[in-house]
Amino acid sequence: MRHNIRTLTGMLVESYQKHEDIIKVDTDNQLNRSVIIEILETLRCLLFPGYFGKKNIASASVEYYAGNLLEEVIFKLSKQIHFALRQNSAAGTGATNGASATTDANNKRLAEKAEHIAFAFLSKLPEIREKLDTDVSATLDGDPAAAGKDEIISSYPGLYAIMVNRLAHELHILSVPLIPRIMTEHAHSLTGIDIHPGASIGSYFFIDHGTGIVIGETTVIGNHVKLYQGVTLGALSTRGGQSLKNIKRHPTIEDNVTIYSGASILGGSTVIGEGVVVGSNAFITQTVPEQTKVSVKNPELRYKKRNAPAAECPPSCPLIQDDEQWSQKEFEQDPLWFYTI
Amino acid sequence: MRHNIRTLTGMLVESYQKHEDIIKVDTDNQLNRSVIIEILETLRCLLFPGYFGKKNIASASVEYYAGNLLEEVIFKLSKQIHFALRQNSAAGTGATNGASATTDANNKRLAEKAEHIAFAFLSKLPEIREKLDTDVSATLDGDPAAAGKDEIISSYPGLYAIMVNRLAHELHILSVPLIPRIMTEHAHSLTGIDIHPGASIGSYFFIDHGTGIVIGETTVIGNHVKLYQGVTLGALSTRGGQSLKNIKRHPTIEDNVTIYSGASILGGSTVIGEGVVVGSNAFITQTVPEQTKVSVKNPELRYKKRNAPAAECPPSCPLIQDDEQWSQKEFEQDPLWFYTI
Amino acid sequence: MRHNIRTLTGMLVESYQKHEDIIKVDTDNQLNRSVIIEILETLRCLLFPGYFGKKNIASASVEYYAGNLLEEVIFKLSKQIHFALRQNSAAGTGATNGASATTDANNKRLAEKAEHIAFAFLSKLPEIREKLDTDVSATLDGDPAAAGKDEIISSYPGLYAIMVNRLAHELHILSVPLIPRIMTEHAHSLTGIDIHPGASIGSYFFIDHGTGIVIGETTVIGNHVKLYQGVTLGALSTRGGQSLKNIKRHPTIEDNVTIYSGASILGGSTVIGEGVVVGSNAFITQTVPEQTKVSVKNPELRYKKRNAPAAECPPSCPLIQDDEQWSQKEFEQDPLWFYTI
Repeated sequence: MRHNIRTLTGMLVESYQKHEDIIKVDTDNQLNRSVIIEILETLRCLLFPGYFGKKNIASASVEYYAGNLLEEVIFKLSKQIHFALRQNSAAGTGATNGASATTDANNKRLAEKAEHIAFAFLSKLPEIREKLDTDVSATLDGDPAAAGKDEIISSYPGLYAIMVNRLAHELHILSVPLIPRIMTEHAHSLTGIDIHPGASIGSYFFIDHGTGIVIGETTVIGNHVKLYQGVTLGALSTRGGQSLKNIKRHPTIEDNVTIYSGASILGGSTVIGEGVVVGSNAFITQTVPEQTKVSVKNPELRYKKRNAPAAECPPSCPLIQDDEQWSQKEFEQDPLWFYTI
Repeated sequence: MRHNIRTLTGMLVESYQKHEDIIKVDTDNQLNRSVIIEILETLRCLLFPGYFGKKNIASASVEYYAGNLLEEVIFKLSKQIHFALRQNSAAGTGATNGASATTDANNKRLAEKAEHIAFAFLSKLPEIREKLDTDVSATLDGDPAAAGKDEIISSYPGLYAIMVNRLAHELHILSVPLIPRIMTEHAHSLTGIDIHPGASIGSYFFIDHGTGIVIGETTVIGNHVKLYQGVTLGALSTRGGQSLKNIKRHPTIEDNVTIYSGASILGGSTVIGEGVVVGSNAFITQTVPEQTKVSVKNPELRYKKRNAPAAECPPSCPLIQDDEQWSQKEFEQDPLWFYTI
Repeated sequence: MRHNIRTLTGMLVESYQKHEDIIKVDTDNQLNRSVIIEILETLRCLLFPGYFGKKNIASASVEYYAGNLLEEVIFKLSKQIHFALRQNSAAGTGATNGASATTDANNKRLAEKAEHIAFAFLSKLPEIREKLDTDVSATLDGDPAAAGKDEIISSYPGLYAIMVNRLAHELHILSVPLIPRIMTEHAHSLTGIDIHPGASIGSYFFIDHGTGIVIGETTVIGNHVKLYQGVTLGALSTRGGQSLKNIKRHPTIEDNVTIYSGASILGGSTVIGEGVVVGSNAFITQTVPEQTKVSVKNPELRYKKRNAPAAECPPSCPLIQDDEQWSQKEFEQDPLWFYTI
């Protein structure tokens, strides 16, 4: 086996040399994904004290609690932002590896910049709390199954995804590379909700169920908007690839809009006006004027009964009646029934 | 930086005072999400001995294995149920914080109640195992890709989601607050399958792939039911918010029903009768009588060929032939092709 | 409480005896899911050095880095493959438990076989790196939101799901039971992307967003293929259950195909020809000839305005105008609006 390991190692080292754009060597102090997720968890503790992390906080000592966590998070975050800036500036200069592109002076400048960014970001936490408070209210108002604010804060995936977007979006505005996306992809992994850090979202935002939601980079969402599972706010075509970078490719959703499950709204010049309701599975690539309800003219349904007269179907049931009776055998043998019927 | 932390702390403490409904202070012994997930993992070990947790159990000592884990789980679970009951009774009285609402006597009463609930719940484990055994069989029968029961128990997300629903549903019946939803949202996070603890599900239940499935609180599902990815069993409208609480808003699915991927079945009075098969992407808001196959009349497909006669399309292919030939340029430049064609 | 635990234990032990097919006792050295996930993480470190696990690798010592991890992984993997082969051979002989079915000689033979398989598998790593390099390029080319290769490697769920498929597929080809599926279901849990280890995928594969994607066991995918969220490459019907095992049930996708979100392509004899583009939500069960664009003739949309003349709708907007004006009350009270309109 020892011989085999030598052989395998040789083969792999050769591959490292051949495909060196997906390997990272001779760089120190790199971004650490695990630390970024720790930071995210600490931020959650700061946003909702008593719900996550340390329990049993006395109101008299909440200042020490906050100060203590802030000290921890500003230190870790400044460091990760510093690494991210360095990695990015190295990539920008076309240098293969981060270290070689930064002089000591430049490095010091980036470290200071990182600390300023971290401070600017953390000073947004009260504003983010204010918005999250509206999101919790919108969830309670919108979901009959919600048992209370405790349940929403401790278990709703939609609220988690919104919280991470609100945090990552501030870092995105401050032009921090890499870190915001690592945060939102962590939330995507936990919730199935994929909100790009670039998306800008108003107050009282409510996501129900959420799995399969995609909200693209240049999306703008107003206040009191409600989304269900499987909704896409996307681009019309990304065939232009990197040449479309920084162009508004995703829609604008105005205030008081509800979008039901599975609907797709595409395109950078598509505006969903104030008060619009979009029905399930609608596929929309043009602007919808305000105060409008848009729905798919529902695809016709076809029904076949097995060994029973079509008349059995209740009069109220708007079926396309099918005179033909299927035998038990036909019923079971038709492999394509749900398509070819 | 030290000065900055003081400033940030001050801002955040002010925000805690302003938005005090999303902060929890001066309460002791609160619910702990991590412990609840530990309990869930221990319950899985008890349901499928030898598959999770300790391996290599001798049949002669299986009693010690079970007794040991049960002792651990009854202790932890009673404590968490106690906290949940207390948190809930505090919320019910409108008290801001849990502690103030409970006298010592009341607290002792809740502790005893919690222990009784934990016992009642754990005595359901044999029944849950019996149902899970049928679910494993249904999965093996239904999925040609399943290599055997070992593969199903150790890796199928559908089985995991069903297991968690069967556990959480018993706690839901026993009126335990918060804990059942924390359990099902954990399963939702791991599997993309969102089954509310209130949903009642019969034997031989099989979920294939599963991502994007939503099963609402008041859904009732019979025996031998099979669901594919992206199926919604939902409410017609939740605009009533909290006023709809405890009203049957989700459908009833009778025995031997198969529902293919992406179908939505909505409404509390919608009944999908015995033996029904619902085709992919059907959108159903009315009762379907038993022994019926319901399918979307599939939306017409349109085809365009690039630099080739339409006749190249095989005669068997039921295409809407398009006489117009597209040039290479047209083919590539039409950004909306999949919509405007 | 102590008495209760005795009662509960007794009930559960009885259940173990009654449903013994979902319990595993008297077997030693079983497969360990956690170890398999550790192996997967180590393989990721070997494929993308410097991105995961140990940072700050000097180019001069990359050989030690690789050799060290390979030694660890070959040891762990051989052991898990050995257990998987044993578990499988026991299942094959119909023996209730693994141990009883394997003699010492047979066991030794399986251990040697496992080591050979592990070596054969690991010698594929350079080839897998080569393909992953093309996948990273395809992602950068295809997604205007991608900030660079660093962001893709460290945060894109699509790349993670592809990596795990490329690894698991090699184990699948080597007929390793259980382990490949545990790996892909782990990726499914993290990404919402469900690719069966049996699926064979060419170079330059790009998955955007990804949640809800299902790629079945016998799917074959060419080079330069691009898939969006919610795409199903599935079977037409699995009603045959285990009798369909090993039959090609899933489609073939040729080179340079793009499949937009929510499309379903079903059936083992369905071939999507070279250069085809499939539009969102298309439902396809027949072969599509090369160089074709296939799209759903989009379902008609219906619009209703609230308290406003239909004329407000911009002339460019291709709506089905509805003369009837809805009062505010009607607008709000119509619970079924998105269906019955």
